[in-house]
Amino acid sequence: MCELLGMECNVPTDIVFSFSALSLRGGLRGPHGDGWGLALYEGKAARVFLEPAAAARSPLARFVRDNPIKTLLAVAHVRKKTRGNTSLANTHPFVRELWGRQWVFAHNGTVKDARRRPLGRFTPVGDTDSEHAFCALLDGLERRFPAYPRRRTELWRAVAELGGEIGRGGTFNFLLGDGAHLFARCATRLCYIIRKAPFKRATLADEDLAVDFAEVTTPRDRVAVVATAPLTRDEAWVVGEPGTLWVFDGGACRATLPSR
Amino acid sequence: MCELLGMECNVPTDIVFSFSALSLRGGLRGPHGDGWGLALYEGKAARVFLEPAAAARSPLARFVRDNPIKTLLAVAHVRKKTRGNTSLANTHPFVRELWGRQWVFAHNGTVKDARRRPLGRFTPVGDTDSEHAFCALLDGLERRFPAYPRRRTELWRAVAELGGEIGRGGTFNFLLGDGAHLFARCATRLCYIIRKAPFKRATLADEDLAVDFAEVTTPRDRVAVVATAPLTRDEAWVVGEPGTLWVFDGGACRATLPSR
Repeated sequence: MCELLGMECNVPTDIVFSFSALSLRGGLRGPHGDGWGLALYEGKAARVFLEPAAAARSPLARFVRDNPIKTLLAVAHVRKKTRGNTSLANTHPFVRELWGRQWVFAHNGTVKDARRRPLGRFTPVGDTDSEHAFCALLDGLERRFPAYPRRRTELWRAVAELGGEIGRGGTFNFLLGDGAHLFARCATRLCYIIRKAPFKRATLADEDLAVDFAEVTTPRDRVAVVATAPLTRDEAWVVGEPGTLWVFDGGACRATLPSR
Repeated sequence: MCELLGMECNVPTDIVFSFSALSLRGGLRGPHGDGWGLALYEGKAARVFLEPAAAARSPLARFVRDNPIKTLLAVAHVRKKTRGNTSLANTHPFVRELWGRQWVFAHNGTVKDARRRPLGRFTPVGDTDSEHAFCALLDGLERRFPAYPRRRTELWRAVAELGGEIGRGGTFNFLLGDGAHLFARCATRLCYIIRKAPFKRATLADEDLAVDFAEVTTPRDRVAVVATAPLTRDEAWVVGEPGTLWVFDGGACRATLPSR
């Protein structure tokens, strides 16, 4: 199993506080020592840091913590391999271009049946069921729409339906970014929190690191954080219901859709 | 104009010595202060570092220099913008998946006419003529072959022909990696060197940094380095003839093909 972390905001925000928690679970506090990845959007493009080695001891993960990059949308993953070798090609998040924007995907769980799904024009580079499922998901979107849908809610519903369809073959918790939204599907475990005014102090669940968000924010800031398990011990996280998809935009959860 | 750097080897090699030369040209010694990028292959996948800011003063470029990652195939670029804004989406090298492998592309020059070319399934994320040309090149390859060609020389010829065709619309010096080869097209300026036994000392053209390659290699190592201009002042670089494509594999130049 792996751990997912997503962030979606209305003002550029750095993900260092949450990423610190996640990367410590990658090999030091948790069993997720088989690689990690972090995608940070700038408009429709994403900067992606990948390392097929434990995040807790990674110089690159330390660099990311020491040199915060602000973003409106981020997707991160630490991996405990269940399928596929530890290699760069098997390291989440995966990236593909569709309709002139980069799509970023990270998965927690196993969807063995994904491999039986016919592939369209997107072909896995590595040998994980996760990347296969991502390719199938994008293929499904491309079959439904000739271009990025103007009616956003049509896109949201399509992601929910395709997530449900592919997810029938296993455990399909995922985060998907398209540069505009963060989609988060809960199959078994996923939770989120919206940080907004009045901001408070928060303490990481796994260590004594605390941040007083009131000191680093303005009253209009809104930040949605999604994770496999709560990252802080003094905030109230919303726990996902299995078979649902959350859609985040502007630092708010815009929709909770059935995804079965 | 921009500067290109490629490396292709028969044993995993770090690109730090050459990348140091390139990144110093990125904003400190040269006029290329609008961003830089470096792609390092591991099998069919590439790890890509991108920064839409000067390489010479970039903490990420320093990280790459301080934490060498060995690879068989690398493509790097420092940018002086001619078209398009300075943004992540406009930062080379560009990456797309085709036939289950990542293709990496960096361009030097301007091919305004590239924008008139119809696009297939690959769509630019940014607004450079370079990315448009790359999308057209991959589309051309996909139209010719249903999968990665078994006969490698057919692929080589196709890249040369498509490079010539797209290059008619401007100046099309490029580096293209597919995880197995480094393709290097010379439109106006490109040169290469093969480092092999007996290895010698080499000194960077722009500063006093020198490396004695005999100390860091074995007699069987072969390393091809391609660059816009010679990076060292005490080695004999092969200067490209305009309208040709070099194909590197195993640290050797396997073919010099017409590309007009």
